[in-house]
Amino acid sequence: MPRKINLAVIAGDGIGPEVIAEALKVLHAAVPADTTIDVTHYPFGAGHYIATGEILTAGGLEALAQHDAILLGAVGGDPRDPRLAGGIIERGLLLGLRFAFDHYVNLRPTTLFPGVASPLAKPGKVDFVVVREGTEGPYVGNGGGIRVGSPNEVANEVSVNTAFGVERLVRFAFRTAQARHGRLTLVHKTNVLVHAGGLWQRTVDAVATEYPDVTVDYLHVDAATIFLVTNPARFDTIVTDNLFGDILTDLAGAISGGIGLAASGNINPDGAFPSMFEPVHGSAPDIAGRGIADPTAAILSVAMLLSHLGFTDEAARIGTAVTNDLAGRGTAGRSTTEVGDAIAHSLRA
Amino acid sequence: MPRKINLAVIAGDGIGPEVIAEALKVLHAAVPADTTIDVTHYPFGAGHYIATGEILTAGGLEALAQHDAILLGAVGGDPRDPRLAGGIIERGLLLGLRFAFDHYVNLRPTTLFPGVASPLAKPGKVDFVVVREGTEGPYVGNGGGIRVGSPNEVANEVSVNTAFGVERLVRFAFRTAQARHGRLTLVHKTNVLVHAGGLWQRTVDAVATEYPDVTVDYLHVDAATIFLVTNPARFDTIVTDNLFGDILTDLAGAISGGIGLAASGNINPDGAFPSMFEPVHGSAPDIAGRGIADPTAAILSVAMLLSHLGFTDEAARIGTAVTNDLAGRGTAGRSTTEVGDAIAHSLRA
Ligand SMILES: CC(C)[C@H](C(=O)O)[C@@H](O)C(=O)O
Ligand SMILES: CC(C)[C@H](C(=O)O)[C@@H](O)C(=O)O
Repeated sequence: MPRKINLAVIAGDGIGPEVIAEALKVLHAAVPADTTIDVTHYPFGAGHYIATGEILTAGGLEALAQHDAILLGAVGGDPRDPRLAGGIIERGLLLGLRFAFDHYVNLRPTTLFPGVASPLAKPGKVDFVVVREGTEGPYVGNGGGIRVGSPNEVANEVSVNTAFGVERLVRFAFRTAQARHGRLTLVHKTNVLVHAGGLWQRTVDAVATEYPDVTVDYLHVDAATIFLVTNPARFDTIVTDNLFGDILTDLAGAISGGIGLAASGNINPDGAFPSMFEPVHGSAPDIAGRGIADPTAAILSVAMLLSHLGFTDEAARIGTAVTNDLAGRGTAGRSTTEVGDAIAHSLRA
Repeated sequence: MPRKINLAVIAGDGIGPEVIAEALKVLHAAVPADTTIDVTHYPFGAGHYIATGEILTAGGLEALAQHDAILLGAVGGDPRDPRLAGGIIERGLLLGLRFAFDHYVNLRPTTLFPGVASPLAKPGKVDFVVVREGTEGPYVGNGGGIRVGSPNEVANEVSVNTAFGVERLVRFAFRTAQARHGRLTLVHKTNVLVHAGGLWQRTVDAVATEYPDVTVDYLHVDAATIFLVTNPARFDTIVTDNLFGDILTDLAGAISGGIGLAASGNINPDGAFPSMFEPVHGSAPDIAGRGIADPTAAILSVAMLLSHLGFTDEAARIGTAVTNDLAGRGTAGRSTTEVGDAIAHSLRA
């Protein structure tokens, strides 16, 4: 049966458009011949904001909501640009979308592909997934200051955690662990953040009774960073809060060869809103426009997107194509388009 | 001039007493012959709590306050023991002391000593110090829950940051950077935690004008973990908040050969209260009583303690003795007492 994908693309800033061009190339090469892909580009990003004053409009949100999924490149400009201070783009656009579309699962797989160099001397098998909460925790924007700029300033940030939000995420994590190797690790800081930590721990303990085939353990976030560099093979599925997940997945990206290879999905499993797929890396303004950005993370994000939309075979074929491409890459640097072309070509073969 | 050190020791739980015995051995070997060391042992810890119900008494605090410094081994019992749930010992005792004695500087040097194996393939030069805030942030215990245990539970944790608290810490960090290689890196998450992050960034910017010889840069905490495993040599002095400092210093310990070698100081630079020195590692109940715990972190904590009390030459001599000991260790495991004896012996030579 012919299918249609109604895709929204936010290529964004810096290397975003460069890697997205290759990701789309691969997307077109991967889907069955009778599949139509409707691509609508949205201009949002730091550049658009500087040019127009617009970050994410109500109309834009409404239009985006009509799509089957969103593919995002990278958003954000020069971090020293005062017009972009305070993470205005990150919060207004990236977090804005995650919150508006209730992307409560931030899914971040980590694999050390054959042929890829890890900074670890003996990485062993690196193949785990972080199920990061995406709509709560210290990310909710529930902070404030008094006497700002004075010697008596007090600046607070509130981490908000709900049974509703934690439970749905934890359930997703158990299902994920069950479909993998059946090992789930909760990462938190229960010995200091007792209220939030207590909620997370109690929720995991309660849901665990429904998954007797999943073994569960717990690590404090500080200890988890140690294991990520000394024994990453101990991890199968990690479930953790928004901020800890942010930190752990950058580290996970680094040990598996760099965040240039790390894909992620901002998922609304209920399907009420389109899910959004994006490389973990940023807009990298320092290398933008030179055609040297690695599009692999964006391409793997397309694989996650396809899998989410039910194109599981096609997603697996991209995974294989990327694995083969990485294994054959050697140390010679290739351009952004060369990598995209090679992977698209192998999918067509 | 003969001197006296009036030392409080909290050996604590698990491997705490084992490593403290060696640390005291080294302390006695390091100080000049005319220095008297008065050691008072305090029984606090998980074991004491289980036996007596006492965590940290008002009388205990008052008595501890009379000392020149505190040496702490490790506190905490079996993490699965329900009597110790919710970090009751960590919060009541360790954080209790840090807060009661206004240990606003949590100083954590990281060095990859010659002869020590790093999990990194090419660690390069690892020699930096983390100046972690010790009395604010998400550690203040300002959280709470409503409808706890119900499907409508909400659990909040508040990170509290004050201009007073951040500025005094940042000033200490600038002085530290100045005495080192003049490079200070602020680590925070200013693009998400805008109120706290703004305070930290503005404080660093303001104090920086008084230190034209210190270069300052900024990293988000997630990016900092990447650099710690790909290019630790980029770091000289890191200044960061309580929680980020907790996470980064465990990772830093790991890349420099394990937290078995990582020392720390909980410092009240004003001298209003005794400072406290402790290995970064915990009580490690799994290896306690077997005489195999590495006392090096405890011994290096004694060096920090001596340096804090003005015994700078003696502190440096311990540093050299540890460096030599580590370089000569090879791969054969030595017992806790063998390591302590060897270092004490070399100091007496
Ligand atoms: C850009 C930033 C707000 C974002 C986050 O912290 O979630 C990024 O680091 C990520 O991990 O996607
Ligand atoms: C035991 C715990 C409360 C403590 C902390 O989080 O500060 C420890 O991890 C440390 O780093 O000293």
